[in-house]
Amino acid sequence: MTRSAFAALFMAAATPLLAQTPVDPKVAALRDAALDDDTAWDIVEGLTTEVGPRLAGTAAEARARDWSVRKLTALGFANVRVDTFPMPVWSRDIDSESAAVVAPFPQPLAVTALGNSAATPLGGIQGEVVGFDTIDDLIAAPDASVRGKIVFVSHAMPRTQDGSSYGAFGRPRREGPSVASRKGALAIVIRSIGTDYHRNPHTGVQTWADGATPIPAAALSLPDAEQLQRILKRGQPVTLRLNLQNRMTQGQSGNVIADVPGRDPNAPPVLVACHLDSWDLGTGAVDDGAGCAIVAAAAKRIMNAGRPLRPIRIVWFGAEEVGLFGGLDYRAKYGKQLHYALAESDFGAGRIYRVNSNLGPARKAEAQALQRALAPLGIVPGELDSAGGSDIGPMLADGLPGVELQQDGTHYFDLHHTQDDTLDKIDKKDLQQNVAAWTTMLAVLSGGIGPEPKRRSRR
Amino acid sequence: MTRSAFAALFMAAATPLLAQTPVDPKVAALRDAALDDDTAWDIVEGLTTEVGPRLAGTAAEARARDWSVRKLTALGFANVRVDTFPMPVWSRDIDSESAAVVAPFPQPLAVTALGNSAATPLGGIQGEVVGFDTIDDLIAAPDASVRGKIVFVSHAMPRTQDGSSYGAFGRPRREGPSVASRKGALAIVIRSIGTDYHRNPHTGVQTWADGATPIPAAALSLPDAEQLQRILKRGQPVTLRLNLQNRMTQGQSGNVIADVPGRDPNAPPVLVACHLDSWDLGTGAVDDGAGCAIVAAAAKRIMNAGRPLRPIRIVWFGAEEVGLFGGLDYRAKYGKQLHYALAESDFGAGRIYRVNSNLGPARKAEAQALQRALAPLGIVPGELDSAGGSDIGPMLADGLPGVELQQDGTHYFDLHHTQDDTLDKIDKKDLQQNVAAWTTMLAVLSGGIGPEPKRRSRR
Repeated sequence: MTRSAFAALFMAAATPLLAQTPVDPKVAALRDAALDDDTAWDIVEGLTTEVGPRLAGTAAEARARDWSVRKLTALGFANVRVDTFPMPVWSRDIDSESAAVVAPFPQPLAVTALGNSAATPLGGIQGEVVGFDTIDDLIAAPDASVRGKIVFVSHAMPRTQDGSSYGAFGRPRREGPSVASRKGALAIVIRSIGTDYHRNPHTGVQTWADGATPIPAAALSLPDAEQLQRILKRGQPVTLRLNLQNRMTQGQSGNVIADVPGRDPNAPPVLVACHLDSWDLGTGAVDDGAGCAIVAAAAKRIMNAGRPLRPIRIVWFGAEEVGLFGGLDYRAKYGKQLHYALAESDFGAGRIYRVNSNLGPARKAEAQALQRALAPLGIVPGELDSAGGSDIGPMLADGLPGVELQQDGTHYFDLHHTQDDTLDKIDKKDLQQNVAAWTTMLAVLSGGIGPEPKRRSRR
Repeated sequence: MTRSAFAALFMAAATPLLAQTPVDPKVAALRDAALDDDTAWDIVEGLTTEVGPRLAGTAAEARARDWSVRKLTALGFANVRVDTFPMPVWSRDIDSESAAVVAPFPQPLAVTALGNSAATPLGGIQGEVVGFDTIDDLIAAPDASVRGKIVFVSHAMPRTQDGSSYGAFGRPRREGPSVASRKGALAIVIRSIGTDYHRNPHTGVQTWADGATPIPAAALSLPDAEQLQRILKRGQPVTLRLNLQNRMTQGQSGNVIADVPGRDPNAPPVLVACHLDSWDLGTGAVDDGAGCAIVAAAAKRIMNAGRPLRPIRIVWFGAEEVGLFGGLDYRAKYGKQLHYALAESDFGAGRIYRVNSNLGPARKAEAQALQRALAPLGIVPGELDSAGGSDIGPMLADGLPGVELQQDGTHYFDLHHTQDDTLDKIDKKDLQQNVAAWTTMLAVLSGGIGPEPKRRSRR
């Protein structure tokens, strides 16, 4: 037994959180019924099939918003609306991206540009490769060793259940291009920030630091990155050809918002979120079609059961992948309003294994009631003073209360930002467990479900 | 228990094959030492890294032959030579292949041409899709329902350990293009003949039947084929765009041959084979770099132990993938000569689980001795009247004796003929078990290893 697991057991014995009061039978019934949910699958199947890839700011994302308005309206939600906002749009010609070892062992490599990469001239560029095992090795390298060359940066990202390796090992993508540019590199290719051994390069956003001129910046799949390492180890000069076609334009994105009205129209809403945009390579099934499907399906289950005390607000954010534009737009427009809680589903379709929350000391009993209600789904009670989320992150940092239903991300970075992010990767049972957890959370936080208010008769 | 498993148990009880005579300790020692083999990994790592993809008849395959001659010579084999032959060469522009749904739900699909496909005009063709669940449904369809359209054929190929599903369910690839052409189709796309859910279309050869004009013929990955099925099920007309650039030229291939001399120079050789060419999408690690590595590593282990009674002949065939050209060239040149046995490794790098042979009734005791010697590697005694192999198949059909070391192919068709056929897919321990089995087979069939003949002194 690890020391931390032992400590957890000891603390559980000292403060038996889960044994205080029984779970409300209505909440338990909603939770258990949601394990047979069909709505979430219907949403993610429809979005990925009828829209497919939906890069932020493009016509495809606009089609996704139209689809979403129709779908959320058909599901019976109220006030379905779109908040649009302008944004810069980086887009690529997928069919024009290629890389190849020219010498000493000519062969193609699987590659894709990182977000905001510069384009190469038509037909590509060619240069000598200089390889580094870590981003810190690149940072430490003299400029002269890099100038005019194609930098290659590797790393050793491991699998983690909570995805924490993405933060630590994502530096080659986030920092590598700017560091290489400042040192005068011709271009940079990195080992994809991912964990799968398929010919799937992982794209993802990177932002040019001050003083860094955009250069071509791309990711190799893991098999290709290791192939390039083997070739470099032979000790001969290695020449790479790189062709990346892409452009920056101005465009529009938007947040799709819908409501479940509450019995108390003045109560602050419980906001449940996901992001509607996806990277362009796959159909955005796990990132983040699944999240949109989960939160809407859970809200619909509450709506179908009656009327919650507090309103529920669904937000399918736009343009998350390329810089949280949707979350920042919402925050600018509504971030000062009261929200009862914020929560976002944006870590795939794996089962939820832990719940964290940050509702404040005054609501500790409510947070513990939520833990108890979730435990039968195999969900570990986690922190009471932390919560996370992508688009909602800045508002959580502002101090708004939040809940975090942590998904098992052991396999998430096998698919993340690749062409392999497609519907077939979603396990329907896992998706239903997610819906059950979100339904439970909404049943607890929305203040209890009552009868529909009587409609005024027109006699 | 299945009926055949019961029958196998009953027969084993009736004729205790494995209990007759003990295994020769020298054979057992060679077998067990081979489980630590490094040579096979060294070969497949070198070939896939320093040559990479090596399509039959191309300059890349010629580089592979040069590499092979250097490698086999460096390993100490005798008479390393190349038998060349001319052949028609079909090749593609990998970076120019693309497909997309144009309507009703615009999105790209992952596609690759089948061997001998016609090219589309530059920029591609566009047409309405007509879908069929099986090749027989296509065959039964009236020509008018297909004429001028893009045919889509699906299938339901399952995983099988022995690969038998490839024969039965490979018909959409082998027959589909000719059937579609004869019915006047504009083009054909099939669900890849494969078992993986990655965006990996599986290429493979198909040959135009008499009266069938070449048309564009391609494979979609499984996720894309199922996406197209979902889109078709919406009931609206579906328009597909297909761009495939490729050409036919004349070229040259060749078989690389090397020997382990025997103590009896007049004894017929034991021939061990693989194919050196690969499809162009991956680096041909499991198909069939692994096979070449296994048979050469086993022959080297025998050579290092002393001198076998019978010679061992290694053949790394050329141009297997596109029509067994290398096997047929060898058969035309040497197929009438006596061979003690033929065996080929061409089913990936999975563990060997069964041995079949067809050495004839007079050599039953030898075949059983081989079974006994292999059993400690977890290898089931199989048939005594059948053997198989790709390039050696025509010679086995001619009546030459053969041994078949069957590999576990449960996951073989996840990678077969895709870009994902790369070195990282090979498990070194499984590769070593293969080398041990082939070393055992050579130790048994080569007639016993004796001392090196004394060299004439030059005093």
